[in-house]
Amino acid sequence: MITLSSDFGSPYPGAMKGVLLQWTDAQLVDIAHDFPRQNVPASAFWLTQVLPYFPPAVHLAVVDPGVGTDRDAIVVSAGEHALVGPDNGLLVPPARILAADDERFDVYRVAVTHEQNSADPTSQWPPDPASSTFHGRDVFAPVAGRIHEASVDTLADIEGLEPTDEYETLRFPDYEEVDDGLRGEVIAIDAFGNVITNVPGETIESHVGTQVRVNDIPAPVRRTYAAVDRGERVVTIGSHGNVEFAVNQARGEVAFGLSVGDTVHIDW
Amino acid sequence: MITLSSDFGSPYPGAMKGVLLQWTDAQLVDIAHDFPRQNVPASAFWLTQVLPYFPPAVHLAVVDPGVGTDRDAIVVSAGEHALVGPDNGLLVPPARILAADDERFDVYRVAVTHEQNSADPTSQWPPDPASSTFHGRDVFAPVAGRIHEASVDTLADIEGLEPTDEYETLRFPDYEEVDDGLRGEVIAIDAFGNVITNVPGETIESHVGTQVRVNDIPAPVRRTYAAVDRGERVVTIGSHGNVEFAVNQARGEVAFGLSVGDTVHIDW
Amino acid sequence: MITLSSDFGSPYPGAMKGVLLQWTDAQLVDIAHDFPRQNVPASAFWLTQVLPYFPPAVHLAVVDPGVGTDRDAIVVSAGEHALVGPDNGLLVPPARILAADDERFDVYRVAVTHEQNSADPTSQWPPDPASSTFHGRDVFAPVAGRIHEASVDTLADIEGLEPTDEYETLRFPDYEEVDDGLRGEVIAIDAFGNVITNVPGETIESHVGTQVRVNDIPAPVRRTYAAVDRGERVVTIGSHGNVEFAVNQARGEVAFGLSVGDTVHIDW
Repeated sequence: MITLSSDFGSPYPGAMKGVLLQWTDAQLVDIAHDFPRQNVPASAFWLTQVLPYFPPAVHLAVVDPGVGTDRDAIVVSAGEHALVGPDNGLLVPPARILAADDERFDVYRVAVTHEQNSADPTSQWPPDPASSTFHGRDVFAPVAGRIHEASVDTLADIEGLEPTDEYETLRFPDYEEVDDGLRGEVIAIDAFGNVITNVPGETIESHVGTQVRVNDIPAPVRRTYAAVDRGERVVTIGSHGNVEFAVNQARGEVAFGLSVGDTVHIDW
Repeated sequence: MITLSSDFGSPYPGAMKGVLLQWTDAQLVDIAHDFPRQNVPASAFWLTQVLPYFPPAVHLAVVDPGVGTDRDAIVVSAGEHALVGPDNGLLVPPARILAADDERFDVYRVAVTHEQNSADPTSQWPPDPASSTFHGRDVFAPVAGRIHEASVDTLADIEGLEPTDEYETLRFPDYEEVDDGLRGEVIAIDAFGNVITNVPGETIESHVGTQVRVNDIPAPVRRTYAAVDRGERVVTIGSHGNVEFAVNQARGEVAFGLSVGDTVHIDW
Repeated sequence: MITLSSDFGSPYPGAMKGVLLQWTDAQLVDIAHDFPRQNVPASAFWLTQVLPYFPPAVHLAVVDPGVGTDRDAIVVSAGEHALVGPDNGLLVPPARILAADDERFDVYRVAVTHEQNSADPTSQWPPDPASSTFHGRDVFAPVAGRIHEASVDTLADIEGLEPTDEYETLRFPDYEEVDDGLRGEVIAIDAFGNVITNVPGETIESHVGTQVRVNDIPAPVRRTYAAVDRGERVVTIGSHGNVEFAVNQARGEVAFGLSVGDTVHIDW
């Protein structure tokens, strides 16, 4: 099984699927191709929300503002899963979770060649990208297809994969406890307009049923969206386990005036 | 085979797929994840347009404004198909059609537990949702995966499914014949901007070739969009069998000034 | 394997999938359903960018402004691939590439009947469309499902397929060399806002590292988007091999003021 995640929109993922299916008969599962465009941290967050629910799989994930520069392509083995994508931190947060208890995972650099001979991505190994702008098709898809045919335990035996301890990392910002409240950050906004923060849900557990202020906007803390009237603001614990600002049946990011990266103060 | 329909946008359906694939090796078929947001009747209409074309399958469908409240999760067996989703009427119109001649179908309530122990949706049965806001992942996907491994004839034997005669129902509004015309309602607008009504196509069969008025806007009745010039309004019988207001190669809902739920008068 | 491409948006492709799965157990692979609406040349361009990466497959592609008129449904055999869609030129550019060296491909007309008996698309052969507006479901899906069960070498043996030399063709416009530059045309704009022209990349190979003017707007020619600062314009060779106008991490079609079909002058 190979999952596909990217910010490619359409129809570029189709070309990746074609290349994958030249390398393997694996079942392909689309996760999303509208990840926040060229936004590595927000995309990494979404990967942490989705990949842990999968059985062992190869996860191809490409959000790659540095495509065509000398950033490496990497493979990460984490638990029984493997991740394939650019070395820009994207794969690190989901790898920590897939690696489970000890958060230990292994990273391999892909020995991509650059002979500029427009090699065919459906057969050339190691990859030699035909383009400087579409490594999803020319590098990452061949890698995901190739390693799917191996076992996640034998990645070290694959020609062109080199174990490395040097890779880009990524940590989501920490929240802070402050006088009479918390200070956090917006890490994603979902398709419903729900504003997702880096603040763990347990910090507001004891406030459920009360009213708080979010950047001075008053809102009740409740367990469900439907606990407030349609159109009303609500602070809740999202399915991701973090504090979320929402509006019942409408858009929280509009009602709270928040965007990804914004600082939020929650006052009790 | 399991089909997936929702108003979740992206990337939440990816988590549902992961959970499903922990329960079953079934082929997963995406229908749509951009159903009209939290609009149960319009989403139910789309299910009636798509599900009847499938071979026997489990259909997971989630449009669920009441997520986290005490509305039940249900399974419906209809003909050789099973449907899984919230008890809010969504599954009833497609179930009537899948049940075929006699429109009889059976409904089972899922005995969801609420131990608040953050049970793992990939293994806990009956489901005990970890979240109050994402039952697609925590309740409906486990149910769809679990029943796919059984037969649609043996649902009654599955622990945690209880036959019930009490469930929410849903009927699309009826159209009316009025002086020199018809009065109907807009039930959906498709991705092309075609305005779909609840008026059966046979009511305008005898008017093909003539001109009618739609809320006082004149428009010809024709069999195809291309029977009028590009940019011109046309009244036609859509692929759903109902009367539709369209514009050749442009957007009917703009040209006719109509939205879902609007009343329409067709005058001969 | 059957790939699906269309401009149908959502949820109509779901009905096509249902019909296909009544005719065949083939793996279904979504390419895109948001092809430029009713724009046959731009959609044909995207097919040329995606289909050649696939292993032998049946490719169902529907962008069909003439649905319901007397335009034919055709099947094209090209190399080990088959294409199914409307006879409006859409399938010709990808067929030339899939046919490989000699660009020779064979075309078959589908003997669609029009008994107006609302035949069931899941079983009727040859197709007899129930609707005048959704031949993706009523004609093209049954054809794709039916021929998938045959071999691409034996299409001539299938009842209802008639070899023909008369079909609509389509060629992308040629670019021209002019005084001190090139004149081309915008053939597509991708999801990132990159402006894709009909000008082959090799024409600017010798200009990499220099500055050119695009309709009098100065821009550097570079191999990657990231070779210029974020927000800066760049002329590059896209993954499709053609000249592309882009902005690093922003939208090229806005910065260059270009739309599909526009003429572009590149001055050295």
